[in-house]
Amino acid sequence: MSKSPGFMARALAEARLGVERGDGGPFGALIVQGNRIISCNHNEVLVRRDPTAHAEILAIRAAALVLGRPHLTDCVLYTTCEPCPMCLGAAAWARIPRLFYGCTRNDAEKIGFSDRRIYALVRDEPDSIPLERISLDRRSCLRLFTEWRLRKDSVLY
Amino acid sequence: MSKSPGFMARALAEARLGVERGDGGPFGALIVQGNRIISCNHNEVLVRRDPTAHAEILAIRAAALVLGRPHLTDCVLYTTCEPCPMCLGAAAWARIPRLFYGCTRNDAEKIGFSDRRIYALVRDEPDSIPLERISLDRRSCLRLFTEWRLRKDSVLY
Repeated sequence: MSKSPGFMARALAEARLGVERGDGGPFGALIVQGNRIISCNHNEVLVRRDPTAHAEILAIRAAALVLGRPHLTDCVLYTTCEPCPMCLGAAAWARIPRLFYGCTRNDAEKIGFSDRRIYALVRDEPDSIPLERISLDRRSCLRLFTEWRLRKDSVLY
Repeated sequence: MSKSPGFMARALAEARLGVERGDGGPFGALIVQGNRIISCNHNEVLVRRDPTAHAEILAIRAAALVLGRPHLTDCVLYTTCEPCPMCLGAAAWARIPRLFYGCTRNDAEKIGFSDRRIYALVRDEPDSIPLERISLDRRSCLRLFTEWRLRKDSVLY
């Protein structure tokens, strides 16, 4: 769980590799368990044509696959930029207790990325990415929630 | 782009299928382009052992793959529950302009899911999922941002 500048240097080298290949933006991430690197990924949004292929998402998915479980409670995330809300949410769902980040959401905005405006969306603040959210059929969706809660085999995560 | 209760019913049927299979939580999502369903997925966190395998993430990834581009500006998302910050962020990165949702983040909390507490994390509010965020090596990470900005072949998304 210890802080190590070596891990961030490794994430940065991975980010640089992605830029040289043209795979996506200048971002890299590692998942570390103790002193062992479990996964190491760079942004692949362009090469995969996948808007969710951020370095952190790929590293979290890869680590969960390696460890065989969706929870990474004993792991730490190193990322060359403050995670956007998508990636911060992924880290939270994975129950990662601690992350180290290099650049900030404002640094990302200065080179043209939307991180800060997506934070504004999730925070219901002005100047956010526009995304209209409309409630529909809540009652019928709630019925399935109740059925799920009453099942004996339901598993929380 | 029109609202259609039929699409939400389809998302709900997909969610129910996932519950019956034990693949994950009671959540389903569709990506719709015009009146055509491009992708249709349910939560697979347990079966894939992947904390990012929410219905919305899977549907966005699948639709981007089908359409061959990371941006879904001409698509609408239907989801049986208000997207968590991870999924809302994914929809924003995909430039989806509108989404319809069934249950709310508070409904999800009542059956044991962390959506509301992850919103609190992204919003820096109390009672959030705990996740320590520590700044490290910003200066060296910023150098790669500058290099990326100065390249002639850099592509924004």
